[in-house]
Amino acid sequence: MADGTVFDSLRPLKKDNRGFDLKQLLIGSEGTLGIVTAATLRLLPALADRAVLWAGVGDIRDARKLLLHAQRVAGNALEGFEVMPRHSLEAVLAHSANARAPLQDAHEWNALIELTADASSADALPALAQSLLESAFEKGLVADATIARNEAQAEQFWQLRDEIAPAERALGPAMQHDISVPVSDMADFVAAAVPKVEAAFPGTRAVAFGHLGDGNVHFHVLAPKGSTPGEWEESEGKAISAFVHDEVTAWKGSISAEHGIGQLKRDELARLGDPAQLAIMRQVKRALDPLGLLNPGKLVTLETTPEPL
Amino acid sequence: MADGTVFDSLRPLKKDNRGFDLKQLLIGSEGTLGIVTAATLRLLPALADRAVLWAGVGDIRDARKLLLHAQRVAGNALEGFEVMPRHSLEAVLAHSANARAPLQDAHEWNALIELTADASSADALPALAQSLLESAFEKGLVADATIARNEAQAEQFWQLRDEIAPAERALGPAMQHDISVPVSDMADFVAAAVPKVEAAFPGTRAVAFGHLGDGNVHFHVLAPKGSTPGEWEESEGKAISAFVHDEVTAWKGSISAEHGIGQLKRDELARLGDPAQLAIMRQVKRALDPLGLLNPGKLVTLETTPEPL
Repeated sequence: MADGTVFDSLRPLKKDNRGFDLKQLLIGSEGTLGIVTAATLRLLPALADRAVLWAGVGDIRDARKLLLHAQRVAGNALEGFEVMPRHSLEAVLAHSANARAPLQDAHEWNALIELTADASSADALPALAQSLLESAFEKGLVADATIARNEAQAEQFWQLRDEIAPAERALGPAMQHDISVPVSDMADFVAAAVPKVEAAFPGTRAVAFGHLGDGNVHFHVLAPKGSTPGEWEESEGKAISAFVHDEVTAWKGSISAEHGIGQLKRDELARLGDPAQLAIMRQVKRALDPLGLLNPGKLVTLETTPEPL
Repeated sequence: MADGTVFDSLRPLKKDNRGFDLKQLLIGSEGTLGIVTAATLRLLPALADRAVLWAGVGDIRDARKLLLHAQRVAGNALEGFEVMPRHSLEAVLAHSANARAPLQDAHEWNALIELTADASSADALPALAQSLLESAFEKGLVADATIARNEAQAEQFWQLRDEIAPAERALGPAMQHDISVPVSDMADFVAAAVPKVEAAFPGTRAVAFGHLGDGNVHFHVLAPKGSTPGEWEESEGKAISAFVHDEVTAWKGSISAEHGIGQLKRDELARLGDPAQLAIMRQVKRALDPLGLLNPGKLVTLETTPEPL
């Protein structure tokens, strides 16, 4: 801690109700309340098997219907549900020499679905994947779909997903946003926000991809062709990020789903965050680090002089 | 909050990394940092089926071996693993007119195991329960065991577990402790602590039962026969609780696994808690409730006068 105290919370207790959950307070505090020097890990049995599916759908709301169907059919076996628009897949196929499209035709949206099983349910996994796919076809939820034939092909499917960010970067400058909204609203948010951003900033292209099952997408806005890297980000780019963050806030979402605040989003958090939440954060910061020694300038600052109690 | 601020954290975001996890700080703070006035609930699909097993084993370490085996065989399907000593089961059978022992013979320890399944795995559940039982017999992990034939019998098995506390209470005064130690140490803790307590306080009987799978048991110490209710708790009873809490602390456990601190355990937390942890809790309490308005006297007190910052 800032005063030199060592707080040891390494006990691997599954249940402990002795007061405030200080470990959880430190997790995600980005080093502004204390410095984490050790952790206790819980080991889980390795997964016994996985099934990876690729589906083509007509729009992002169809992808959401497919997600709900997969949750119903697969239950706990549903481990991941990722989406990417046609633009992202085509960017990856153009960027990576050995990338191949999983389906014959192009679709406006693609869903990558992973089911996993432990030793107790591994035998039933292939049938579960098959049944998910067949019932999705029957209900008209997918235009086309396939199951990875083996682990090598499963890896290829995932590489298409993992290479979106570098492939989009190769196309030119872009503003990247790591956002979340309530899971049930994400499809509507993407359907509304993409054309809205593109209309407000002519020549840009907005691309959302990622963790639909978590209500969290990476929302990239690509610069108009011919924009100068470095210049564009500082001028139009900044206005675009403020616009996207305003939209996310209007949808009661978060301007940082995964990556934290740091210094890059510190001023945006101060501008858009809940004033009550920011005040409590400052009170806690001031109590545990009154001199502002820990990771200064990040996340939340002690803007006002501490008042005597 | 103490200053009248309303902090709204009701957004159902699955991922949100905008600073300190204040919701988690308030959970478990027992009303000492703020008053929770609303909550957002996440709905999960109803479980499709369950299988409830009852096993008799020789001692608490055998129960732990059976737990590890059940975790390996059943994986995520393992929902509950409860243990009770012979004394507790006999107390329930004597106390409840329509309670019946699940197994023909008496065993020193009993394990109650629940497996659950959602819609995707319900069909495989009966075979999984059968396979768990057969493999446990083959490995010599159980002396005798049975699977509840139907939901009514499953309920009966659980009632035996749920009636331990009233049945033990009917036997006379007892000191009750809600404790946890690391899951992997709980069997050794019970095996060591029960005879140690009984030796230190002649005439008492120590009984541990509950959530072995969580490393959390209810550790009751029953008064010697003929003790006067009311008197005994205040005299020998208090010394027994201090003794049990000392043991738990020596095993790096928690003196409150489930029930919280309140005022009953406040002084024991101050006596046995980590001084660094208590100091941080007081700093946070002082920052968010400097006047000590919220649930005063509970959990942690502002013992020292606040120093000017």
